Amino acid sequence: MTLREDAEQIVRKSIQAVLPDEAVRKALAGRKYGRGKLYMVSVGKAGWQMAKAAADLLGDRLEAGVVVTKYDHVKGEIPRTRCFEAGHPVPDENSFLAAQAALDLAAEARDGDEVIFLLSGGGSALFEKPLVTGEELKDITEQLLACGADIVEINTIRKRLSAVKGGRFALACEPARVFSIVLSDILGDPLDMIASGPAYADASTCAEAVRIAGKYKLKLTDEAWTLLKKETPKMLSNVETQITGSVSGLCRAAALACSALGYEPQILTDRLACEAREAGRFLGAIAKTYQHTEKSLAFLAGGETVVHLTGRGKGGRNQEIALAAAEEIAGLTGTAVFSFGSDGTDGPTDAAGGCCDPDTKDRLAAEGVSVYEALLDNDAYHALAKADGLIFTGATGTNVNDVTVLLIRR
Amino acid sequence: MTLREDAEQIVRKSIQAVLPDEAVRKALAGRKYGRGKLYMVSVGKAGWQMAKAAADLLGDRLEAGVVVTKYDHVKGEIPRTRCFEAGHPVPDENSFLAAQAALDLAAEARDGDEVIFLLSGGGSALFEKPLVTGEELKDITEQLLACGADIVEINTIRKRLSAVKGGRFALACEPARVFSIVLSDILGDPLDMIASGPAYADASTCAEAVRIAGKYKLKLTDEAWTLLKKETPKMLSNVETQITGSVSGLCRAAALACSALGYEPQILTDRLACEAREAGRFLGAIAKTYQHTEKSLAFLAGGETVVHLTGRGKGGRNQEIALAAAEEIAGLTGTAVFSFGSDGTDGPTDAAGGCCDPDTKDRLAAEGVSVYEALLDNDAYHALAKADGLIFTGATGTNVNDVTVLLIRR
Repeated sequence: MTLREDAEQIVRKSIQAVLPDEAVRKALAGRKYGRGKLYMVSVGKAGWQMAKAAADLLGDRLEAGVVVTKYDHVKGEIPRTRCFEAGHPVPDENSFLAAQAALDLAAEARDGDEVIFLLSGGGSALFEKPLVTGEELKDITEQLLACGADIVEINTIRKRLSAVKGGRFALACEPARVFSIVLSDILGDPLDMIASGPAYADASTCAEAVRIAGKYKLKLTDEAWTLLKKETPKMLSNVETQITGSVSGLCRAAALACSALGYEPQILTDRLACEAREAGRFLGAIAKTYQHTEKSLAFLAGGETVVHLTGRGKGGRNQEIALAAAEEIAGLTGTAVFSFGSDGTDGPTDAAGGCCDPDTKDRLAAEGVSVYEALLDNDAYHALAKADGLIFTGATGTNVNDVTVLLIRR
Repeated sequence: MTLREDAEQIVRKSIQAVLPDEAVRKALAGRKYGRGKLYMVSVGKAGWQMAKAAADLLGDRLEAGVVVTKYDHVKGEIPRTRCFEAGHPVPDENSFLAAQAALDLAAEARDGDEVIFLLSGGGSALFEKPLVTGEELKDITEQLLACGADIVEINTIRKRLSAVKGGRFALACEPARVFSIVLSDILGDPLDMIASGPAYADASTCAEAVRIAGKYKLKLTDEAWTLLKKETPKMLSNVETQITGSVSGLCRAAALACSALGYEPQILTDRLACEAREAGRFLGAIAKTYQHTEKSLAFLAGGETVVHLTGRGKGGRNQEIALAAAEEIAGLTGTAVFSFGSDGTDGPTDAAGGCCDPDTKDRLAAEGVSVYEALLDNDAYHALAKADGLIFTGATGTNVNDVTVLLIRR
């Protein structure tokens, strides 16, 4: 197999491992349930797939379920389950209806029952039941954005205006137990941030909420002021959480796929957040140093890098990583760097990412393309296209960020 | 010991290992010489220290020597050795006189004799004997710079106009043997580039030189044209080369110093050449991923990073690395990132580099300093100064680039 074929296989296997349905199957595998009833609530962009996989596994054990996901994301019926499509990134009436349906189900659940709560990105908007009117929620959100409040401050206020955020959905399930399966799209898996943590004890306090409202001189109704002073749950004794699809899982799956191909893998980080092209250069520098290795090696770095636009070309962060690395690994026999997004769409392109090898730079030069200038124009897509350096997977239905792999084969 | 004390000790020990005199002592240790005469030629910014160390070791065995270094860099007399100070970065009359003195010494050396050739950075200018007039050499160099020729093209031309570059000095020593000890200041130790390779077989060809002269339409005298067509040595059978001080050596010494303090070290690269602050972020991302390690770890990355100026502050590439890392490792107990230049002067500052720990960001915030804004203004020096984050060593007399270390102590 060529290095490129190795890369394609690693891409395929690692995305497979973090697909929402696969992630749910893994989390529920071998799990035992009591004699109580089993409910299911599935929230987020991957809500339907996660629910479908869980429902297939639970079969007749499933008592009732609620799903809420983005518009056009419901792909069919799920037994005993109501499926909602709702607004994203701005919540709409359907977000409220879906949250109410989930709260009704939570109210039905008794001691000994269990709620399987499936969570993926986008839940903050899709799943909402405001304790103020929809108009006031919208107004307060706009005030917070206009005054430059940061995301932590905004969430501290909003959790208190919501019947489901900041651990309150799990609280509503009491005394039933909640098994929360989280497909994480945020680096480091901060459970209070993913969908604003409906089933996660909230660390923010009323005192902070009041201080923030004062700091930004928010205009609030008396009702909203009262809500700010009402505490969110600080401890949830009925919740068990499992993070399953996440960039860490993507890295581990990629590392396993490398091992299977005979590479000795090392995950350098699953928290990469630097400038994309510089990450490519860093990995290229590692390639130079390890070029005389006697065994095949794979270095992996997962995360969500950034791109600062300086040109008008087409590309994505993974493609920029691969293109920048092409310059560094030029001429290093048996070396490849590839990078891809688990969602299959890197930036505003139809490619999942990019791949470079020791000849990429020369092939580009033969086509009259300079790596330096293509990067300056943020045009990695067109550059890599000329060197057969794009990776295509199609939309995958998952989104747990990216992973970059440096392969050195001996 | 605190992490900061660990850092200081690693800095001290690793610089010690790549000091010019130490490097020469290491390279000459246990070396046996025949019954012939021993000559010494020492060229470069560290020329005097290297020559002094060699002369001390050789004692009465030294027949005669020539040293050429920068102005004010000769620190005393060396027995049986003529010391020159010459122009840098532009060669001057003294560069020519010194090269001639070395060639005279080479002419004196007979079969069975040995020339110990000590080379450090800066030699291209300090050690030169043009085969055209000084004026024409200057004119051709200016033409090449003006037309945008790259460094490889410039060197291909200049080697042919010189009596010492491109392996010609070693050729002049024949039939005597040459033992070349190189203190490398270029990543990857390209021996043809360091001081333009006076004792290294030249890979460039006359055909290339003529092509370059044509490509840029160089105006040359007939004499210069003739020289372009005269080949440089393609093989040197009388030379043995040892690279001793180099960024690889700096990394290895730093890794040893980490081991001695109980860290398990890994050299990620000795070829780092990306944007300084992004290297800091990359190492910070590694720190996040390895924060739950059970054993103490050290990740090392050596090289020569770059800084793009966007502000008017004061700093250097190592200080930018440390400041950018401060943002990433904030709150990560038992973690530190430090970075330093082996020459002891990072950028236009009196600091060798910078160091950050989990509290650096908070200490800066308390002083009203934002990491983001300090980086935007390239003002790492003043920022780190406020958080006790500068590393001072004084000028060290060596220059083998930088190393960055991430320490995680358990």
